[in-house]
Amino acid sequence: MSQIAELKALRGKATGSVGLVPTMGYLHDGHLALVRQARDENEAVVVSIFVNPTQFGAGEDFASYPRDHERDLALLKEERVDIVFVPPVEEMYPAGFCSGVEVGRVTERLEGVSRPGHFRGVATVVAKLFNIVEPTRAYFGQKDAQQAVVIERMVADLNMNLEIVIAPTVREPDGLAMSSRNIHLNSEERRAALVLWRALSLAQQLFSQGERQAESIRHRMSALIQEEPLASIDYVSIAGAASLEELATIEGPALVSLAVRIGSTRLIDNIVLGG
Amino acid sequence: MSQIAELKALRGKATGSVGLVPTMGYLHDGHLALVRQARDENEAVVVSIFVNPTQFGAGEDFASYPRDHERDLALLKEERVDIVFVPPVEEMYPAGFCSGVEVGRVTERLEGVSRPGHFRGVATVVAKLFNIVEPTRAYFGQKDAQQAVVIERMVADLNMNLEIVIAPTVREPDGLAMSSRNIHLNSEERRAALVLWRALSLAQQLFSQGERQAESIRHRMSALIQEEPLASIDYVSIAGAASLEELATIEGPALVSLAVRIGSTRLIDNIVLGG
Repeated sequence: MSQIAELKALRGKATGSVGLVPTMGYLHDGHLALVRQARDENEAVVVSIFVNPTQFGAGEDFASYPRDHERDLALLKEERVDIVFVPPVEEMYPAGFCSGVEVGRVTERLEGVSRPGHFRGVATVVAKLFNIVEPTRAYFGQKDAQQAVVIERMVADLNMNLEIVIAPTVREPDGLAMSSRNIHLNSEERRAALVLWRALSLAQQLFSQGERQAESIRHRMSALIQEEPLASIDYVSIAGAASLEELATIEGPALVSLAVRIGSTRLIDNIVLGG
Repeated sequence: MSQIAELKALRGKATGSVGLVPTMGYLHDGHLALVRQARDENEAVVVSIFVNPTQFGAGEDFASYPRDHERDLALLKEERVDIVFVPPVEEMYPAGFCSGVEVGRVTERLEGVSRPGHFRGVATVVAKLFNIVEPTRAYFGQKDAQQAVVIERMVADLNMNLEIVIAPTVREPDGLAMSSRNIHLNSEERRAALVLWRALSLAQQLFSQGERQAESIRHRMSALIQEEPLASIDYVSIAGAASLEELATIEGPALVSLAVRIGSTRLIDNIVLGG
């Protein structure tokens, strides 16, 4: 289904709970875990597939973002998804479109620094999808930890009528977080990409051993990543899990997150300590 | 009723259509005309009264904006309004609030130039009220013409699920547009304030006589206002009724709008030509 009016008309007829899983397609087991949870918890499931141009900056990978529509549809059919919503760009952003949702402070750090405008794009398209689908619950992955914080903030601030469900990151057997962008990695890069998980595991280990000085953990993580010649650090952060403000000392729940370029592919990952 | 959760719980029980009239209180016949139309067109009517601090700039009249809660409630009771929603500021903007809705181009002109940030405040609070009340229809006055354009743009851009109804400006017998701010005018200023309506009437007359050169009409309007010693022009505009871009020649519907200070009170008014 590609038309907003068509989806709204169908939605108007649904009486039970509706779960929405917003995606950019090129689905992996992380997406499918969200779909299965939505299936378990709602009477109907809607999955949207939309590579949203407004959340990509100039020079980012909008054009090269991987797409495989037929495979996606086949996977979602297997999961008994009720509606797959695949709007064209001009359906979401017709001529004259000029509105946006901005979420403050929590968008100004981490990804927001590296990708200015990214979260305005995300918040705006997610607000649109919420209004189009009117879901009872919407499902997002912890893999995009800051996105989860931003969306929860938007929903609370604007009094939106739905529940946000954040599901755990799904990983490959060796620990690499599933991501549609992993397809860009050649075999050497795929091996190097494991450095993200090794750095997060090191943070977990140091924390378990009693380390609470955030800078000490950041330093050890960065040193580990720098040993990998194919890796280039964008950021290594230990921040308050809700505020996203960098911590000196870990007391409450802390989000340990990082963005690292492996060759030309930018990967992100995170864990929560003390949560 | 002052609590969002309480209103949402009640709203969840309503099965028929709901009309919302958002106001800042100190109600006049313009507001009451909106309430009556909402009453005619919906099974239930909600009126919100909230002097929204975020749509007032520094040095504007938030503190002195007129308030008379008891009189407002009595008037709305007479109109058989089902729910009057009067949230305190901290209910609408609790600690940590940091989101906002921005509407582009159409907010950058007219009031948006004189009152930077005003329409972000308006769009954000209106989006919140729409999510809290989930109205079938929401009612606004043509008196705030640009606000009407901004809200219609927001609703279309963000795919909000309601109908926006814009009702004609209600005027005093001598032509002065009703406004809560008129209470600030002393008797001399009240007389001088009629210059807004006289300028708009002049524009209507020139247009009826065949004048299509916008600058000629603006010039005649400004000259008329300048004859009034208590009046100080903020802007006199003839713009496309949807784009709000200043026109050279009037071809389609044109919004003739103006903002004028009468003493220390800033008044706005407008008419549409060729609509």
